[in-house]
Amino acid sequence: MISELRRDPTSGSWVAIASARSRRPSDFRIIHGEQKKGTCPFCYGNEHMTPPEILAIGRETDAPNAEGWQVRIVPNKFPAFSLDYGDSVDVDRDIEGQDGLYVSIPAVGIHEVLVETPEHDSTFGEHSERRIEDILTAMIIRFRALKQDKRIKYLQAFKNWGHAGGASLSHTHCQLIAVPIVPKIIQTELDYARQHTDRTGRCLYCGIVESEIEKGERVLNESQHFLAFCPYASKFPYETWIVPKRHNSAFEDISKDETADLARMLRLVVRTFELAFDDVPYNIVWHTCPWNGDFSTYYHWHLELLPRLATIAGFELGTGYYINPTAPEVAAAALRESMPKD
Amino acid sequence: MISELRRDPTSGSWVAIASARSRRPSDFRIIHGEQKKGTCPFCYGNEHMTPPEILAIGRETDAPNAEGWQVRIVPNKFPAFSLDYGDSVDVDRDIEGQDGLYVSIPAVGIHEVLVETPEHDSTFGEHSERRIEDILTAMIIRFRALKQDKRIKYLQAFKNWGHAGGASLSHTHCQLIAVPIVPKIIQTELDYARQHTDRTGRCLYCGIVESEIEKGERVLNESQHFLAFCPYASKFPYETWIVPKRHNSAFEDISKDETADLARMLRLVVRTFELAFDDVPYNIVWHTCPWNGDFSTYYHWHLELLPRLATIAGFELGTGYYINPTAPEVAAAALRESMPKD
Repeated sequence: MISELRRDPTSGSWVAIASARSRRPSDFRIIHGEQKKGTCPFCYGNEHMTPPEILAIGRETDAPNAEGWQVRIVPNKFPAFSLDYGDSVDVDRDIEGQDGLYVSIPAVGIHEVLVETPEHDSTFGEHSERRIEDILTAMIIRFRALKQDKRIKYLQAFKNWGHAGGASLSHTHCQLIAVPIVPKIIQTELDYARQHTDRTGRCLYCGIVESEIEKGERVLNESQHFLAFCPYASKFPYETWIVPKRHNSAFEDISKDETADLARMLRLVVRTFELAFDDVPYNIVWHTCPWNGDFSTYYHWHLELLPRLATIAGFELGTGYYINPTAPEVAAAALRESMPKD
Repeated sequence: MISELRRDPTSGSWVAIASARSRRPSDFRIIHGEQKKGTCPFCYGNEHMTPPEILAIGRETDAPNAEGWQVRIVPNKFPAFSLDYGDSVDVDRDIEGQDGLYVSIPAVGIHEVLVETPEHDSTFGEHSERRIEDILTAMIIRFRALKQDKRIKYLQAFKNWGHAGGASLSHTHCQLIAVPIVPKIIQTELDYARQHTDRTGRCLYCGIVESEIEKGERVLNESQHFLAFCPYASKFPYETWIVPKRHNSAFEDISKDETADLARMLRLVVRTFELAFDDVPYNIVWHTCPWNGDFSTYYHWHLELLPRLATIAGFELGTGYYINPTAPEVAAAALRESMPKD
């Protein structure tokens, strides 16, 4: 099934029209509920319900698609992006060749699911640090492998949790979507970061980390390699960023040591969300550099953890700006109080 | 209570930190339910529960804040924006004077609620065309009045419906938020529209209307003055735009005739949403020109009607791009089938 990326002529934004998923009005009359354990494709014994696995961590036998794994990456069953367009597809040339109002390219990319645990009822905050390290390691393997493919410019890693966070399956998982164009939000961050470095000779994010540590009021936790804080212009109440203290543009270039430290920090922040709020929906969004250039002098990868306690509504959709009912200083103080002691 | 607008140093995006609303974790443990009729501030007899009204349409007596109105505009009880910063506030000068990482200005503006009907259980699609005309007329009065205030650059009109649409009160209403900076999304549309006009000598939106009428497959309805269609790069399933056929940059400049025709078209599209889907959440978002320049040659106001059947999740928040599971051609055909016959 072929999906396409269409460009909005009024804004330059791209939309993946996922025809494999095409839904008529009656398809939306679905009661959202818990996936039952026996029919969950992410549980032990149901490995055959997903497309064949891409990688598994922790299985002691060599048999793929069998039980025993700790972390498992599989293709999305209804992918919005696919590499089935041949090796010679070139979306830049394709875009240049079109001159009408409406521009469309094939949705070249990949769409994978990372199953975080065989435990159906587990939450991310309940994972061991070791498990989160395995999750990060599995992601890094995919980043490094996909980076070799010249058809791909960016890999968006993210986690949706809860109905308001966009999770359609309740068994905890992350997703990887590789896209053939640099995302608008990343391009804007690259532009702002480059301008800052051109003007000051310093990295914008290094400056933010330094300033937040100095002020302290928005900090949740500082570790050897990372700082977790509620950013100055938080879009969402209780938004938290995890930023590496070492200047590094690419998530996939983190060391073994940094991976372990990040696992600890991620667990701490998500567990804090879980303790502060009943059944909080949230997204974790990776921000890292694209693969079509060298951004190492000025870009700085980081994670945004976005609790979805407020709705993106007409004002946000109209203006692109946000109204946040909780100042980040208030949020950080409240989260520090909710932090687990273990 | 003072709110501020903070600029994100990594993206230039503005966030209104609404301190009047500051919420600690426990405030989010709210069960979302229907507002009870007796305690609804938008019902007859409860006019004292809102701040004093700004205007009312349809009341036959001169007594403000009493029953008898058909459409009523009141200040938001918990405004994110306010004009209580004095007449001399100048946010442009204020921004220029700041040179650190973090820039903040007062949240100068207004935040008003337009109550569409005294009927507590009514939906927008159940309104008479006459009522929707009154709603549009009341909005236009506010647009024309606020335009005189040099502290304001843009007035964002919108409607949130349903929990997933961001409506916190169930009695049907619209909102008006005036802001002191041109919204990012509008600035992008202005840039794209100007580039198109510079290149082709024609208005981008006039070209889109012409092309959609010619193709027909994405059209829901065409009237004397308006075209309703599912746009080529729909971000949301069943997204529908209403675009005036006459080139005009400013919503507030529509004629009496156009207002009546728009009321008919709005009713038709929203009623169609209501008939196609069970209890559909949606937003209606006005796109019109700012007040800090002359955009009349190239900008073209329009409405975006956005059913919220899919969740904005990690991919959308990370990339700024959307995955839409329903092609607009499929959506338009299904909506044409659901259209009311009356």
